[in-house]
Formats: sequence, C-alpha cells, structure tokens
Amino acid sequence: MVANSVGPTNAVSSTTPATSATAANPTLRGHKLLILTPTVVDPNTIEKIKQAFPDLQVAAHKVEFFQKSLPEGVPEEEWRNVTILLTTGNLLPSPEQAPLLRYVQLFSAGANNILNNPLFKDTDITFCSANGVHGPQITEWVITTWLAFQHFLPQYLEHQREAKWRRASIAVEDAVGRRVGVLGYGAIGRQVARVAKALGSEVYAYTLHPRDTPESRHDEAYSPPGLGDPEGLIPARWFSGSSKEDLHAFLGSGLDLLVISVPLTPKTTHLIGAAEFEVLSARKTYVSNISRGPIIKTDDLIDALEKETIRGAALDVTDPEPLPDGHPLWHAKNVIITPHVSGISTAYTDRVLAILLENLHRFSEDKKLLNTVSRKEGY
Amino acid sequence: MVANSVGPTNAVSSTTPATSATAANPTLRGHKLLILTPTVVDPNTIEKIKQAFPDLQVAAHKVEFFQKSLPEGVPEEEWRNVTILLTTGNLLPSPEQAPLLRYVQLFSAGANNILNNPLFKDTDITFCSANGVHGPQITEWVITTWLAFQHFLPQYLEHQREAKWRRASIAVEDAVGRRVGVLGYGAIGRQVARVAKALGSEVYAYTLHPRDTPESRHDEAYSPPGLGDPEGLIPARWFSGSSKEDLHAFLGSGLDLLVISVPLTPKTTHLIGAAEFEVLSARKTYVSNISRGPIIKTDDLIDALEKETIRGAALDVTDPEPLPDGHPLWHAKNVIITPHVSGISTAYTDRVLAILLENLHRFSEDKKLLNTVSRKEGY
Repeated sequence: MVANSVGPTNAVSSTTPATSATAANPTLRGHKLLILTPTVVDPNTIEKIKQAFPDLQVAAHKVEFFQKSLPEGVPEEEWRNVTILLTTGNLLPSPEQAPLLRYVQLFSAGANNILNNPLFKDTDITFCSANGVHGPQITEWVITTWLAFQHFLPQYLEHQREAKWRRASIAVEDAVGRRVGVLGYGAIGRQVARVAKALGSEVYAYTLHPRDTPESRHDEAYSPPGLGDPEGLIPARWFSGSSKEDLHAFLGSGLDLLVISVPLTPKTTHLIGAAEFEVLSARKTYVSNISRGPIIKTDDLIDALEKETIRGAALDVTDPEPLPDGHPLWHAKNVIITPHVSGISTAYTDRVLAILLENLHRFSEDKKLLNTVSRKEGY
Repeated sequence: MVANSVGPTNAVSSTTPATSATAANPTLRGHKLLILTPTVVDPNTIEKIKQAFPDLQVAAHKVEFFQKSLPEGVPEEEWRNVTILLTTGNLLPSPEQAPLLRYVQLFSAGANNILNNPLFKDTDITFCSANGVHGPQITEWVITTWLAFQHFLPQYLEHQREAKWRRASIAVEDAVGRRVGVLGYGAIGRQVARVAKALGSEVYAYTLHPRDTPESRHDEAYSPPGLGDPEGLIPARWFSGSSKEDLHAFLGSGLDLLVISVPLTPKTTHLIGAAEFEVLSARKTYVSNISRGPIIKTDDLIDALEKETIRGAALDVTDPEPLPDGHPLWHAKNVIITPHVSGISTAYTDRVLAILLENLHRFSEDKKLLNTVSRKEGY
C-alpha cells in the first residue's frame, strides 16, 4: 500500500468511490479536524480518533446551543489549516476562510439550513448529515406513547394521583398481530419497524419512490449497530407514490398505528387532512407524528379526534408550535402531546461522533462517506 | 399409518413420548372436547378445531368469571363422555364424574389452585397450564412503564393537562446500551428480552437452576409464533442460584432495569428488601415488578424510592393488594402503580385456544403436551 499520497488538497468527491490504493491516507497525515459542539465531547472519543489516525491534528471548541457566529476562540490561522470540520449548520466559515476544507460533518440530521450557504453552494466540499442519530430515542417515544395509550397508562396515572386502585372496564389490545404503517421509511421508521416486529406487529412501509428490488430497499444512512432495518427486510408490504391515490391506498390498508416520519417539504405540507382521516376511519387508526406539525392539518385532526374517527394521536410536533396555552388541541379526546422533545437523547453527541469516526475511516480510504448530502436533492 | 387405534381409554402420559405410529389417532375419533370459558370463543376457532379433527366431538359452555361450581348446563351424561377439557382451575369434575378424561387444558398460567384437587392428585390425567399467554401484554407493560419514566411522560401528561408547552430540563437516557436484568427467565422474561434487544439494550438473565448448556437454555412453554426467546439466545450473561450471594452477584452486575418475573413461592417471598436495594444503589437500577407484590418488602421499597437509592419503580402488583387508599406507596417518589392489570389482553382466550389446538395435535400423535404441569414440581 502506498500510504500518505493524499495531501490536503485532494478533494473528496461525494460521488467518486475508491478507485485505487494510491488515494489512501490511513493516518490522515496533513489533515486537521476541528470540532465545534454545544455539548461536551467525551475525551475518550477524542483519544480514540487520535489513536485511529495518529497523524491527524484534532482541536475541539465548545460553542453555545443555537450560536450563530463563529467562535472567537478559533483564530483565522487555525481555520486556514482545517480540512475536516464537525459543526452545527449555523456555524460555517466562508470558503476563503477555510480553503483546505474537504469534509464537513453536520451535527443535525437535516441539511435545510446550509443549502444557500456559499460553503455548500459554491464548493465541492463533502457535507454529511447526522441522519440516523434520532432513530432509537424517537422510536422509543413512538412505541411508548402508543402502548401507554393502549394500556390506559394516562388513566392509571390519574388514578394513582387519587390513590385509587381501580381497573379499566375493558381489556388491553396488545400489539401482537397489529399492523404498523410507517409513512417515510428512513432511519427513524426503520427502527420503529424493528421494535414493532419484536412486539409481534406487522409493518407496512411507504416511500416516495418505489422500492421494488431488494437493493432499492437498502438504506445507507447511519444506524447504531444492530438497530434499524438497513436492508429493508422487515416490511410485509411496500407502498409508494406521490399521488393522493397512492397515499390513500396505504392509509386504507388496515393500519392500527400510522407513524408519520417523512421530512417536511412543500409536497408533505398538509399531507394529512380530512380526506385522509376519513380513509383512516375504517380501521380507527392511531396516529403518531414525530416529524413536523404542518404535515397534519390541525383543525382536521381536532375534528377527527373529537368525532373519534381515529383511535387517538400522539404528537411530539404541532402546528402552530409551540402550541399556545388554551389551544383546543391540548384537550382534544385521546391525544398525547409532548413539546418537541422526542429527538433529545444523552447519546446524541456520541452518535454524531460515531458517524464522524466511521467517515474518517472512509475519508482515509477515499471511499464515499456516510450520510452525504446530495447537492441535487438537498438532503 | 394405522389410524384410530387410540380409544378414549388410552391414557396419555405426560412423560411418554411418541413411540409408535400405532398410538396415533389423527382424527381424534372417540374423543369429546368440552370447553368451559368465561369469554366468548371465536366460532372460527371451533370450526378450525373441527376441521383439524373431524371425528372429535366439541361442546362449549360459557361460565362466569370466578365461577366456583360446575355449570348446570352440562348434564352428568355429558361429563361421562368427556376426554378433553378446557377449563379454569376452579371448575373441575370429580374423577368419578369424568372417568374418560385424559387431558385438561387450564385457562390460567398458574396451577397452584389444582394441586390439592383429586382430579389432579389422584389420577394421571395430563394437566396443561396456559403458561406463555401473558408474555406479550406484560412485556408491553414493562417496556412502556420503563420508557415512559425515562422519557418523562408522566410529567408531560401533567403539563398537557395544564396546557403548557414546557420541556424537561434534562435529556432522555435512551435504551441503547442499557443493561436489562430479568429475574426469572420464563415466558414473560423472554419476551421482555426480545423487545429490549430490539431497543438496543443488553440482557442478563437469572434462573434458579444453572443454564450452562445451550439445551438447558431452551424454554418449552408456549410462545406466540416468532416471539420470546425459546432457545435462550438473547442473554449476554446468565446468572443462577438460590443463595443471597448468587442473587447479589446478579443485582450488582450493573443493571439499568431489573424486571422481576419469578413466581411467588416461599423462597421468593420478600426476596427483595433493604440489602438488595443497597446492592442496586450502585447503578441506581429502575425496578419493575409484574410478578407478585410480596416478592418485595414494601417498607424497604418505599425507603429506597424516597432516598432515591433506586432510580424508580413500576409496580403492577403490590403488598398489600389492593393497595389501600392513602397508603404511602401511592405517592412515593418516582413510582408508577397500576392495579394488577398487566396480564389482561383481548387476545387471552385466543392464545389459550392456540395452546389447546397445538396440544390436540400432539395428543392425536401421542406426543408430550406443551405446558404439562409436573406433579413433582407443582407447576
């Protein structure tokens, strides 16, 4: 192997796979990694990175949550040598400030706030998202709120507050044999599928583009080891399309639980309204939204809940958001609302660093990086 | 195959495996099944049984929940011909009333209330329990209460009641990489293990007797298809023993969640008290009890909760039970209490009938039945 032949001026293209051993640089000699995070990075992780790549220079600077300007602690001189940057989407240098930059690892799963930034728009620097870091905690939120509702937990917590030993008058419908529909079969939906299957439920998946071949069902986003459904083997049926008819065929397929896990785009805004609740009414589907509030028409949702057209809903996101005091959605029938918290986890930073570490290995081997943001698709 | 050679007088021994084809009776000719249930049996299931065994006579009588005397609708003449009986433990004929009886399928998972009944004690009729029917719903209860606590769901439900958009000040610790200890690795514990693994947690198992070989880790109890851990492949570590030291070695193995799923026996009564909470304090384990209240010393539990020696507790069973109004356990710190409901499921009867159907097949082939109650062990 001819090592160290990659200097910092060799751009890593997001579309060029490894073509020759001459491109490899196993120790990342000549490279400098700058880490800007709002959370404390485990020193063991830094150590692990340094051990894996002994010639890589590593610097870390703590920034504030939602900070919008570059940290003053990083001098211009330092920026000039940075080749790899871990940062939030709000904290990007100009192309001139960081002329050697080759790979930017974002701290967020979405890339919408970088699309118009010159560093993304006007260069061929590889940007990678943190897509996949939310899978476990959001899945837990989805499964927990659904099963809490099914097992009457909100009622029992009230009885407990009143110190009353009082059983519900009807039996629990457990998850065995239920059908879980995942609208948007990405990193989160795939982990929901894994847990739903372990509970004995059947999974139906919906994707924008058809996934008719085994290869097309693969997902290349990051997933914590052993979790998710990277090969797309779990769903019993796959649905796809962008028309109302396509969507309604999925919604009408006898779903006990509908999990909304599509990104918010002009096409998905107000995707679920009165007509869709009408389709869901046949099975009285329970609706879980962990994506973005505006995907559901709020007034239609309140109507469906009050008329018990649907079994209930769990909402971590709302429209408007924050949901104002006194808004009628707060007290609609059979609804559970939390304040956009399902993605928060103490493991968040560790998972982003796991993506970074994997990508440093791929970068050192001149391979396509994980979670590369497409300049064509914008995600 | 020589069919129909088994007449109703051929006793099915619980220990004799199929030894020859001459013992088979594939249509169950000469047999009569009587079903006594407090719930309505799906007519499709009766039809399925009749189709599988065309010569089997089937009669079904509805009884009341907790009924203690045989239903008047079954005449003595009918009892005399019954060879197979599905019933609750309280509704058993005398050996003289049902002289042809060969197999009794109980509606309950426990067999403690039949041990002194002459029909069990003084005959060699095969009794089978409904062990395994609780796995899914109790697992859902365990996982849901644990994750609800971890994700601050009780607090968010209170904020929702107050119509307040207010986030918790600390992040959620999700289940990835957590360690779940299952005390009593039976039908329930094995399904808990399956779901915990899908969530990304590691499972440690504790059994009374050592399970050192792959064969010894198998469980022959009923499990809904595809669920549980019938081969015992999920646990990363196995613990066993009956001494305090054995128990403490398990409790001290860094458990994030302890699931108590052992039966209540003289040995397990007050198994978990102050000394055990002290061991659990090192990791501040969360404790979930879905077995029986007296396994935990209530005063010591309240003390551990109030001092935050343990992270919290989810209790579907208490001691005393029902928990009286105003008992201090109701409002102990970080506790979730439900009124002994975790085993209730709309699928209960269907699962018992699935065991019956499987056992009718085994019975017709003169094979050992599933969930046979041991006259030596009493379960």
